[in-house]
Amino acid sequence: MTESLLERRARLMGPNVPTFYRQPLHLVRGEGVWLWDAAGKRYLDCYNNVPHVGHCHPHVVQAICAQAGVLNTHTRYLHETALDLIDRLGATMHHGTTQAILTCTGSEANDIALRMAQAATGKTGIIATDNTYHGNTALVSQLSTRKPPIGGYAKNVKLVPAPDSLRPVGGSIEGQAAAFAANVARAVAELEADGFGLSCMLICPLFANEGLPDLAPGFLDPTVQVIRKAGGLMIADEVQPGFGRSGSHFWGHDRLGFAPDVVTMGKPMGNGHPVAAVFATPAVMATFREAFGYFNTFGGNPVSAAAAMAVLDVIENEGLQDNARTTGAYMLERLRALRHPWIAQVRGAGQFYGVEFLTDDGAPATAFVADVIEAMVARGVILNNIGKHRNTLKMRPPMPFNREHADIVADTLAVVLATTPVRA
Amino acid sequence: MTESLLERRARLMGPNVPTFYRQPLHLVRGEGVWLWDAAGKRYLDCYNNVPHVGHCHPHVVQAICAQAGVLNTHTRYLHETALDLIDRLGATMHHGTTQAILTCTGSEANDIALRMAQAATGKTGIIATDNTYHGNTALVSQLSTRKPPIGGYAKNVKLVPAPDSLRPVGGSIEGQAAAFAANVARAVAELEADGFGLSCMLICPLFANEGLPDLAPGFLDPTVQVIRKAGGLMIADEVQPGFGRSGSHFWGHDRLGFAPDVVTMGKPMGNGHPVAAVFATPAVMATFREAFGYFNTFGGNPVSAAAAMAVLDVIENEGLQDNARTTGAYMLERLRALRHPWIAQVRGAGQFYGVEFLTDDGAPATAFVADVIEAMVARGVILNNIGKHRNTLKMRPPMPFNREHADIVADTLAVVLATTPVRA
Repeated sequence: MTESLLERRARLMGPNVPTFYRQPLHLVRGEGVWLWDAAGKRYLDCYNNVPHVGHCHPHVVQAICAQAGVLNTHTRYLHETALDLIDRLGATMHHGTTQAILTCTGSEANDIALRMAQAATGKTGIIATDNTYHGNTALVSQLSTRKPPIGGYAKNVKLVPAPDSLRPVGGSIEGQAAAFAANVARAVAELEADGFGLSCMLICPLFANEGLPDLAPGFLDPTVQVIRKAGGLMIADEVQPGFGRSGSHFWGHDRLGFAPDVVTMGKPMGNGHPVAAVFATPAVMATFREAFGYFNTFGGNPVSAAAAMAVLDVIENEGLQDNARTTGAYMLERLRALRHPWIAQVRGAGQFYGVEFLTDDGAPATAFVADVIEAMVARGVILNNIGKHRNTLKMRPPMPFNREHADIVADTLAVVLATTPVRA
Repeated sequence: MTESLLERRARLMGPNVPTFYRQPLHLVRGEGVWLWDAAGKRYLDCYNNVPHVGHCHPHVVQAICAQAGVLNTHTRYLHETALDLIDRLGATMHHGTTQAILTCTGSEANDIALRMAQAATGKTGIIATDNTYHGNTALVSQLSTRKPPIGGYAKNVKLVPAPDSLRPVGGSIEGQAAAFAANVARAVAELEADGFGLSCMLICPLFANEGLPDLAPGFLDPTVQVIRKAGGLMIADEVQPGFGRSGSHFWGHDRLGFAPDVVTMGKPMGNGHPVAAVFATPAVMATFREAFGYFNTFGGNPVSAAAAMAVLDVIENEGLQDNARTTGAYMLERLRALRHPWIAQVRGAGQFYGVEFLTDDGAPATAFVADVIEAMVARGVILNNIGKHRNTLKMRPPMPFNREHADIVADTLAVVLATTPVRA
């Protein structure tokens, strides 16, 4: 069955369309933090952040069904729910980013955010980190490093070394914030020398794809000073940190402690329903709205807005941000108690965990991590890897993940670490 | 109520976010070809193509609800429905465009299509028409002419004069196909001289935004020859013509009679659920897949795929393409029987109608058409305008629109034309 689905997939989708895992999963059902494959095998989902409030949460499903049966149009007509959504999300923002454009995907949101910065500053230079991912449009994919964009990298994009908990930028943890900012200052100077000028820096406040480094609040302060001094905007890509995942804060930029001009969000926002958004300060929004007649057919439609409202309901009603904080602390404790000679660092931010492995020689244990992931999946726990060298276990479960689930993951990981042969 | 919603909208969405109509509609319910506003007033929807099989069609709503309650993940896992959808749509393609990438919006689809052409040809030049719209990403908005993109138009994009039924390119209807192709050949030569080379021409096979000109099958043949000779790809944007709307054919490119290398689709595909796609020949798909690691989190998720499958079910079960053909012919008959000194031409393609108005001096009757639209809406019929001068009534109803509805529109239009003062 799986094999014929793979063949069919190649015939219909073309070559080079990766699946997860050596034996790709053929999933047929999801509920809460659980997934089932076609053979009836159950998996604890310790990876997927899109089903933020749990797979197929009945409150979200009900909201989608109810609205889909009544009306689904677009924002050229008036409707309350899109406005209710912007109002409600805007109330969680502490730095004035209270106006929004609703889109369908985080890629669309970042594509707009970059143009907002260009409209607001009149400049075109963009700074991002060197091992990141912010989406798949032609513009946004210029910031991705895994595969060069078609036609090569744009000259107005500068990528600076990402912060790292083990191999800090500049050589020391204490000096990393200043060293990171110094690289950003150098990139600003290059963009100005090349005639682009600086429009913005776009970052994920968790630096999640970069490896989820442990960073103290205020880490970004020297960088933000550099950007502000150059007249640029700070854009926070909250696709991964947002909606309470970090436990301590609803948004990643508040956790790190900086004030963005533009905030983008996507994946978890509709629990799988395609809805995303760009929030901006009224001043930045106005420059974009006046410069470009943006309209998104599906963006902000009543069904998408209802789905996103329902997700916010569940986060509140089920105390999911608080659960992320307490379960996060417990899970970190369990992970830190694991013993393996190649565990180099255990990191976490609410319901987002990283366990980095280095070999005896201090090299990234990429192959070993790949083997661990396969062994975990075989034992019914879904997770994956992050970081430039893919040597960090990535665990980012649906938010209802609790102590009982944390125990399953930690117990299984203990067995897998004890039984997986080490190889670099 | 409406006024306070407008104020709230400006506060939450920013300035310059247009609504339709002088008194924006506050819609609360939809069913089939009917919409209701908050005051309970009913409107015949003669405009919206997104609710392709009718507002809130129960079969589509049921498909969304059923799948949303069972599983909603992404295409890094295996699942049948996305494959079933590509298989089923691929079977409607007659020119080998059988492989697909599923996305959320037509903008995303066109953003990919343009990069496919660049990957397949190694060139970057793009040709489109001069009064078109293909989407809102940074790349795709380069093809839009209503508002210049932020930072100005890209030099690798050439826009050629759109075909026109009343003021034909080159001066005569008989010579228009050759004149249009000659302009395209000139654009190709310019792109080659400027060092970009030609990657593709992207067109809507109905030239819908351009004004829905009456064009004979084969109109595009000389142009396609020019593009092929230069090594470029033909991309058909089927966002408006597709899914049987033209009555005679399921796809607009088959109606016009040319073989595209890439076909994009969006709006009607999920009846309002955000789902879209790019189909390509396996050769073109392979060059893109090898050049760029494209992944779309929500694209091809089981719920979106189920929605799109349900739309295809309804088109078949309710004979909607055939209805578009027969109702289209009847509606055209009714529209052609209308009498007004300023009616210059009545055009149609299945369930897509245009009535163009010129003043006594032969100038576009833009203001008069605006007044007619407002009067129609006041009488409960929703429609809009198209064309460079916005002097053509645009009627593009949900596909279940039938003779009874055609009579309502034609009868109402007769009254409105008789009672609306002429003004240029």
